[in-house]
Amino acid sequence: MSPSTVEFTDRVFGLHRGGKMAITSTVPLTSREDLSLAYTPGVAEVCEAIAADPALVADYTWASRAVAVVTDGSAVLGLGNIGPRAAMPVMEGKAVLFKQFGGVDAVPICLDTQDVDEIVSVVTALAPSFGGINLEDISAPRCFEIERRLDEALPIPIFHDDQHGTAIVVLAALRNAATLLNRKLGDLRVVVSGAGAAGVAVTRMLVAGGVDPDEVVVCDSRGIIHQGRSDLTAPKAELAVLTNAAGRTGDVTDALRGADVLIGVSGGQIPEAAVAGMAPGGIIFALANPTPEVHPEVAARHVAVVATGRSDFPNQINNVLAFPGIFRGALDARATRITDGMKVAAADAIAGVVADSLRADAIVPSPLDPRVAPAVAEAVADAARRDGVTP
Amino acid sequence: MSPSTVEFTDRVFGLHRGGKMAITSTVPLTSREDLSLAYTPGVAEVCEAIAADPALVADYTWASRAVAVVTDGSAVLGLGNIGPRAAMPVMEGKAVLFKQFGGVDAVPICLDTQDVDEIVSVVTALAPSFGGINLEDISAPRCFEIERRLDEALPIPIFHDDQHGTAIVVLAALRNAATLLNRKLGDLRVVVSGAGAAGVAVTRMLVAGGVDPDEVVVCDSRGIIHQGRSDLTAPKAELAVLTNAAGRTGDVTDALRGADVLIGVSGGQIPEAAVAGMAPGGIIFALANPTPEVHPEVAARHVAVVATGRSDFPNQINNVLAFPGIFRGALDARATRITDGMKVAAADAIAGVVADSLRADAIVPSPLDPRVAPAVAEAVADAARRDGVTP
Repeated sequence: MSPSTVEFTDRVFGLHRGGKMAITSTVPLTSREDLSLAYTPGVAEVCEAIAADPALVADYTWASRAVAVVTDGSAVLGLGNIGPRAAMPVMEGKAVLFKQFGGVDAVPICLDTQDVDEIVSVVTALAPSFGGINLEDISAPRCFEIERRLDEALPIPIFHDDQHGTAIVVLAALRNAATLLNRKLGDLRVVVSGAGAAGVAVTRMLVAGGVDPDEVVVCDSRGIIHQGRSDLTAPKAELAVLTNAAGRTGDVTDALRGADVLIGVSGGQIPEAAVAGMAPGGIIFALANPTPEVHPEVAARHVAVVATGRSDFPNQINNVLAFPGIFRGALDARATRITDGMKVAAADAIAGVVADSLRADAIVPSPLDPRVAPAVAEAVADAARRDGVTP
Repeated sequence: MSPSTVEFTDRVFGLHRGGKMAITSTVPLTSREDLSLAYTPGVAEVCEAIAADPALVADYTWASRAVAVVTDGSAVLGLGNIGPRAAMPVMEGKAVLFKQFGGVDAVPICLDTQDVDEIVSVVTALAPSFGGINLEDISAPRCFEIERRLDEALPIPIFHDDQHGTAIVVLAALRNAATLLNRKLGDLRVVVSGAGAAGVAVTRMLVAGGVDPDEVVVCDSRGIIHQGRSDLTAPKAELAVLTNAAGRTGDVTDALRGADVLIGVSGGQIPEAAVAGMAPGGIIFALANPTPEVHPEVAARHVAVVATGRSDFPNQINNVLAFPGIFRGALDARATRITDGMKVAAADAIAGVVADSLRADAIVPSPLDPRVAPAVAEAVADAARRDGVTP
């Protein structure tokens, strides 16, 4: 390791020592009277009121403000299946980002099971304590079933960030890139490279946002996904029906020939020759971390707008632009779920923050831009009311 | 309601609005560099270190500091089976008392199941996120099995506060009352009225602390527990073997004839005539809340020392004297469980805080006494090391 790498590592471990978060009381607890109000005997009156009308739990506890950040440690960052304990630092990091950017109180819950039925029953059991569930770093295709079953079982928002957070920011970025290039989303030919959690969600989100599904081609490690393939999991088989109306076959190079947009979501490295076949004036989002599918300098030789998942290049596609505001808005509106309309509204809000100052190296706001989360929250709450998922 | 009661209720609901707790970040999150250290890419190094050595989760996350306050809402305060949502205000209150008095970060987890197997599997699944589990307000006899099975399954402290918190403070108070009256614990004849969670644990704790089990008599709602009874649950059958060597039978009045100590733990009202039969110079702890088994003024006519569970009479037996320091000490020592030795040490430490200033109306410290939790924590950590339950 170079000296600067050693120094970074030292600072990382120093910062993480003891963890990154704490609980605080929001009520005074220093006199006997304080205790009699916050605890016995006073608290019994609040319990009885909630027993009589369970909806009051949202008014008189933190349950309407608190989100569980739930993982089974099966797909943590790019590190793979490292288990629940090794996942804790990421979930704590997520929790403090929730608070910092969205004012959302979030609690890391790392589960010592990777069984789908058990994860569903555990999360269902602990749901009364929380106003929302953020699923995180759960491997595909298990993540799809877990999210669907929890969404059906529970009257609170369920959101798998690796799918929808990424997809929302991608849609926001693509909207602004298209505007900048004077193109319409519905006219773009789009290739999505990678059909894991993010790839599936990005594809669906782009379609929900106005991209023509007939003109989308998704590739997994074995090439273009089409209805002639017999090796597809259920989510990929759905993509085969939804996309690729022309029934293209072949590898990612074939897919990219003449395409306007490449969105790389952990689909592996893509050679420059493949990118060179794209239509002129195109767009590349190479989101694999830490090594983008196409190096941004290589990509820039062939397209007009480039984005990555990294903080050290322009146009970082960072989920922190989405999840704090999404949950802030969903909790504020007391939404019972997160609809496609709320996700599209979030993407529009993110895009809107920089709409007046678009440049090829500034199609998304900075992750630190304080305007983002409030704008997303407001748009999401409005969409929730519009979609009829509020009380 | 009287005007003052109305005012109290208004203040209670005002204080509880929005809940009583919040998450805070303990690390800076305002620059790109902050994010790179606390979240990606830096956090990946911490994840990989924990993946290689899972014990490091205690050093680099809050898991070694955080306690889950877990209930199923089946026996909340004196309110009965009001369910998980109505239990939330109590669990939040407990969580903020943990922080205020023990510096322990605690999270309320109210479970939407009352099935013993499911509670055990849910708590086992979420254990990697926490350094300890405080069970709360779970009805007897289910609480005994849940605690035992979790204690066997998990390498972290499991503590059912309704049992052991109460029992520890009772032992502390009885030690000081005996000292004040110049009696020895081993010479006292003790009646425990109530054989629920607290009654069972108090009986066992008193025996662990030096009371002669042959001279203890436990009563439930049907009278004295003895080996001739055929209607006993498993925990009560164990008490029948452990206690009452003389094989006494009859009701609580029979039990109290000539007894030195009455400890009422939700065993129902006890008539003055029964108390009048106790030996002179005795001790009554009437802990039912809000209505003690014997009114303290009535009790004072017949015995030398009286304690209750209420804050508006002297000698309040309040669990807050125990649980913050117990978990603080257990977490500091990284204890894998909470032993009887640690519980007795906690009781001794609580008693010790006021040992030099004993009066009949001051046998336990005030719940607000800041000396208590640190003394308990130190004694518990020492006992953990002595009992060999630390790394």
